[in-house]
Amino acid sequence: MKTRIAIIGYGHIGRAVEQAVAASADMELAGIFHHNDTLDSIEADIAALCVPSRDVPAYAERMLEKGISTVDSFDIHTQVPDLRRKLMPVAREHNAVSVISAGWDPGTDSMVRAILLAMAPEGLTYTNFGPGRSMGHTVAVRAIKGVKDALSMTIPLGTGIHRRMVYVELEPGADFATVEKAILTDAYFKNDETHVMQVPSVKALDNVGHGVNMLRYGVSGATHNQRFEFNMSIDNPALTGQVLVATARAAARMKNEQKYGVFTMIEIPPIYLLNGDTEELIRTLV
Amino acid sequence: MKTRIAIIGYGHIGRAVEQAVAASADMELAGIFHHNDTLDSIEADIAALCVPSRDVPAYAERMLEKGISTVDSFDIHTQVPDLRRKLMPVAREHNAVSVISAGWDPGTDSMVRAILLAMAPEGLTYTNFGPGRSMGHTVAVRAIKGVKDALSMTIPLGTGIHRRMVYVELEPGADFATVEKAILTDAYFKNDETHVMQVPSVKALDNVGHGVNMLRYGVSGATHNQRFEFNMSIDNPALTGQVLVATARAAARMKNEQKYGVFTMIEIPPIYLLNGDTEELIRTLV
Repeated sequence: MKTRIAIIGYGHIGRAVEQAVAASADMELAGIFHHNDTLDSIEADIAALCVPSRDVPAYAERMLEKGISTVDSFDIHTQVPDLRRKLMPVAREHNAVSVISAGWDPGTDSMVRAILLAMAPEGLTYTNFGPGRSMGHTVAVRAIKGVKDALSMTIPLGTGIHRRMVYVELEPGADFATVEKAILTDAYFKNDETHVMQVPSVKALDNVGHGVNMLRYGVSGATHNQRFEFNMSIDNPALTGQVLVATARAAARMKNEQKYGVFTMIEIPPIYLLNGDTEELIRTLV
Repeated sequence: MKTRIAIIGYGHIGRAVEQAVAASADMELAGIFHHNDTLDSIEADIAALCVPSRDVPAYAERMLEKGISTVDSFDIHTQVPDLRRKLMPVAREHNAVSVISAGWDPGTDSMVRAILLAMAPEGLTYTNFGPGRSMGHTVAVRAIKGVKDALSMTIPLGTGIHRRMVYVELEPGADFATVEKAILTDAYFKNDETHVMQVPSVKALDNVGHGVNMLRYGVSGATHNQRFEFNMSIDNPALTGQVLVATARAAARMKNEQKYGVFTMIEIPPIYLLNGDTEELIRTLV
């Protein structure tokens, strides 16, 4: 029997979830709901919450109260433990499963960080992002007076240090120097090397590609100089959508095993993310 | 309360487990047993089986029958599903946990392969090993008549293709050309590019360094050209010993949760490998 997934929110991520569901033999679509649709009629095993992170808590709670399990890619790193604690009693009371922060970072990168820490418990991990668009920084620039549209690119400089390349399209009559100063003194930018450039069209720069370079230098037992590296070059929404669908599979399985509650990806066995017979997957992957 | 680990087998890996236990605040050593010691007196939560892979099944069964959970780094990839199936009823009957094939490959590499498959379900993964010593190939050469000692290095050529660099130290009077021919026609070598060299001392070449370069090119949803790469440059026994200790931690936790049975690493949540408070680990890693 296929797992029935409802998509809530139909932007970049919602569309990517739709495509990943279509490509998964064990999944089927139970409906697509826009951000402001009524959700009373929703009938699904899992709701994939493809709404902005700030809206995730309310949607998750609403779905879990209906006994519908949820997956989301909530990406405000510092608030993940709070979200997990807040949703835990709701998921448990309604015999549902919620997997939170299931994208690539937080998400699969978090799993890799956990495995690297297990391999070398002492040491340093650096996660370098980009080149790629930072949504948080972009939204911060768009909110500045005189900015018609903006793009903030994250450029990795190594050891977790990033350069911000900010491209702004101005409203008629806006003063570039004033906008530039507002950006450079904004909390999002003031601690990073930031360059602001005026462009005629931000839309012409649109690209959802992104990347990660993660490094760990550490110690295994008493042995130093253990080196690990994880890289990816990816279409951001496509990967996020795919991870959400893999996580929905894990959520359905955990619900089936009556493991109700809220989980981050580091709390899930990797095999739960995969479609297929356990022994066959072990034969192929181990 | 600390987890008490007994080490069975005291070669490179046994010594590395001893070091990793010493470096782990939540672990303590419950004894070191040599390959041919009597094991009647063993009292431990977990036995780390640091014996050759071919001896793992018998030792695991013997420990599990005493209700002692086990971890091993059984590395005969093709026999992993059989070992899992064989030990399953023993572990379950005696309320114990056995985590098999818990090294770096099979082991943590298997976890990474599973995560990569979840991120891009269609595509190709290449695991490239080395440069580093292949124990299996080295043992095969040592068994050839006229060979006093040998070292077979694995050199990665990309796309999962490997070159074998074989260094042999001959018995007095042995003929190099005969030994070389025996190696080149051996089942371990006949399908790979292989070079055989005579050296005065194999011991002088000893080095337990190893490496991995894993690549996946695949599709997330409907989006092609997703690229992932995992690299490491490591001391082989040190990493294997550390992974065994991390896995022992997971086994102790699963036993505590009454999840009895046999598991490969892809069946274990990554956080189970780590020492520390769940919420604090989520705060740090997610």
